[in-house]
This record gives sequence, structure tokens and C-alpha cells, in this order.
Amino acid sequence: MSDTVDFPPTERTRIKRLHQRAHYDRETVHAILDAGLICHVGYVIDGQPYVTPTMYWRKDDRVYWHGSSASKMLRHLGTGPRVSFTVALMDGLVLARSGFHSSVNYRTVMAYGNAELVSDPEAKLTALEDMMERIVPGRWPDLKPPSPQELKATTVVSLKLEEVAAKVRDGGANDEPEDLALDVWAGVVPTTTVLGAPIDNPDLKAGIPVPENLKLIRFG
Amino acid sequence: MSDTVDFPPTERTRIKRLHQRAHYDRETVHAILDAGLICHVGYVIDGQPYVTPTMYWRKDDRVYWHGSSASKMLRHLGTGPRVSFTVALMDGLVLARSGFHSSVNYRTVMAYGNAELVSDPEAKLTALEDMMERIVPGRWPDLKPPSPQELKATTVVSLKLEEVAAKVRDGGANDEPEDLALDVWAGVVPTTTVLGAPIDNPDLKAGIPVPENLKLIRFG
Repeated sequence: MSDTVDFPPTERTRIKRLHQRAHYDRETVHAILDAGLICHVGYVIDGQPYVTPTMYWRKDDRVYWHGSSASKMLRHLGTGPRVSFTVALMDGLVLARSGFHSSVNYRTVMAYGNAELVSDPEAKLTALEDMMERIVPGRWPDLKPPSPQELKATTVVSLKLEEVAAKVRDGGANDEPEDLALDVWAGVVPTTTVLGAPIDNPDLKAGIPVPENLKLIRFG
Repeated sequence: MSDTVDFPPTERTRIKRLHQRAHYDRETVHAILDAGLICHVGYVIDGQPYVTPTMYWRKDDRVYWHGSSASKMLRHLGTGPRVSFTVALMDGLVLARSGFHSSVNYRTVMAYGNAELVSDPEAKLTALEDMMERIVPGRWPDLKPPSPQELKATTVVSLKLEEVAAKVRDGGANDEPEDLALDVWAGVVPTTTVLGAPIDNPDLKAGIPVPENLKLIRFG
């Protein structure tokens, strides 16, 4: 992580408290985005905030997500409203000698802006291919290509990464100096997301092996 | 999971598409909330949606979260605005024979309502104890108790679970019948969050063992 500022902080993205955890450089932002698979998109309808967890992927300085064209979220986001985009990866429980200094290790990215509909059919198809390439590199050419009806039923939206910041907490507990002598254990319990062994679909055609490219899945 | 309706769906919580994934019973909602540790809280300031990932805990039909009294989120939420509260646990990547039917297995809870400040000092202290009991059962009595200053610097807010629904996807890929004959592997790659071995704090006093109660940490 560097002190480079590729994304100048705004009133919304400037991290005021614990500012040593803030990062505004492209390398840190991209690394966190490329480690995650699930984002939380925030939007407002009639004054009520909504938060939808969904899969996302990044290309250059843009993140994308998709879903059913019939979904309330995507029908709304297709109109280009303000959104917030959050990715949060938990790395560990930080157990201090006091509850007050107990914490969580994490990597987050928060971005703000207006959602943009990916309406051009070729751009939409490329985006869906990019998504599969993110999940299982090399799997796309094996799949049945999307039909025109499937493409129509799928909405893809994107957000340009302009107003964006990363926030990272790592390391051990930061107790008060006078508490270090207490007879209390302090430290970190790491948390990691792991992949299990692939499970064949019940209706899998006989003789089809688990593809090698599932080993290329990476996240967390 | 049952078909019981403990939380009658509202316009916001009724799941319209894929409604077989929806659950409005207390048992399912509580089980998901008790498995997660991180929620995403959505709120609106000056028309801009914000989403903050943070640790939460549940007691009866209420969820709680906390943070620095100086944080923008908690200063705002202390005024009792509308919020959305989302917990999302990813259980696997669902790889179908088409991109269109590829999906994610997940358990989510979404709740809506007005945030409520926990202002009574005793209630706040109890809530913080409940939080630690959620993270590491039995650890609270070992810790240095919060000082009046620490309590003042900590804001706790809660949300009553009234307008709430769970949504769960599990099982394999649901391809089109005509695609089952394709020579494409389909199935699920499970994802799980696991705990690593505890790491002693660098400044840990000599001779303090890793406490047994760390084995009681459970989530995911």
C-alpha cells in the first residue's frame, strides 16, 4: 500500500478518524476489489435506503454488477441514480485487553457516483464474459452462449471509480499502555474465506470431469 | 426453514421474483443473523446513499451495532433516521451450463426501520457485553471493564426486527432441460469462512496462554 493519491478524496471519501487506515491509490483500491466477489450497493427509493448484496467485477477504473431486468434494484439503477458501492473483506477478530480496543481486521473499498446502464448489446455481452472470467478464468468458451432473450432479461450496470477510497485495518490489538501488564490474552484470530471441493450437479451428464480451471478461482 | 410468517411481508420486504427463496419466519431470520458477524447498514445523508459495513449482534427481535461517537455514521444514526440493515453470507458459486443460470448460493436477511439510539448507560453497557459474548463467549469478565470515558466515546444503536425477510438460495444449478445433454460440467463450489490459529499480540505479557474460549467463536 502506498501514499499515492490517484483518487483525490472528497467530502464523502476522506477518512477523518483513524486516517492512517485510508488509502487513495489505485493499486490498493484495485487489489481489494479484485479480491472480493460480493459488493453491497446502496440506493434510495422514496427516501428509504436499500442495500443489495450482489456479485461484481472490475475492469480498469470501473466496477460492474448485473441481475434480472425485472428486479426492483436494477430497474431503479438503470435510471442512473446516486449509489454507493461497498466491498468489505473481513480478515480477523482483534481481541484486545479491553472491549473498547477490540476490533476487526478488514479491507474495504467505498465508492460513490451515479450508476450507469450498460445498454449497448455488444458491451453487455463483453461485460458478462468479463464476469465469468473473473469467477472461473477460462470457463466462458465452454458455456452455452447467451440467447438474445437471456441478454434482454439481464441488466448490467456500472460505476466509474472516481470518488473512491480504501480503508484497511491490520495488525494486532492497540491497548492502552497501562493495560499491557494485565493478565489477559490479546491477539488476532484470523478469518479467511476458503473454497470447498466442487460438488457435481445431481443432473450432471455421466463422464464429465471437474474442470481444471476451477482451481483458478481466487478471492478473499 | 419453514413457511411460517412471523414477520408479515411489506411492500419492501416481499420477495416478488423467485419467491420460493423468501422466508418470513423468526427461526430462519434469527439463524442467519446468528451466523453472521458483519452487517451492511444503509442510510441517506443529503440524498446520497451510504453503506457502512460493521459488526452487529442480535438479542431477541432486535439487532445492534456500535462505533465511535465521533463517526459520521453513528452521529447520523443516533438521530433515528430510516435505515436498511443487510446481512449476506455466501455459501457457494453455482456454475451452470450457461452464464445465465450461473448463480451464487447465499443466506441473506434484510431489515428496514428507524435506527434507535441506546442512550441509557446501563443498557449500553449490557449491549456491549452482549456484543463480546457474541464474538467470544465467556471473554467479557476477563477484560478491563469500560471506563466512563470509553462508554461516552462509544455509540450503540439498534433496529427492531419488524419489517424483515430472509432470502436463501441453495442447491445446484438449474439449467434449461435442453442444456442437460451438453458436455459442460455443472455444480457448486462451496465457500466457507474459517478461523485461523490465534496469533499472540506482539506485546503480549509472557506466560499468558491462548484462552480456551476462543474455540467457542462461531460464525459463517
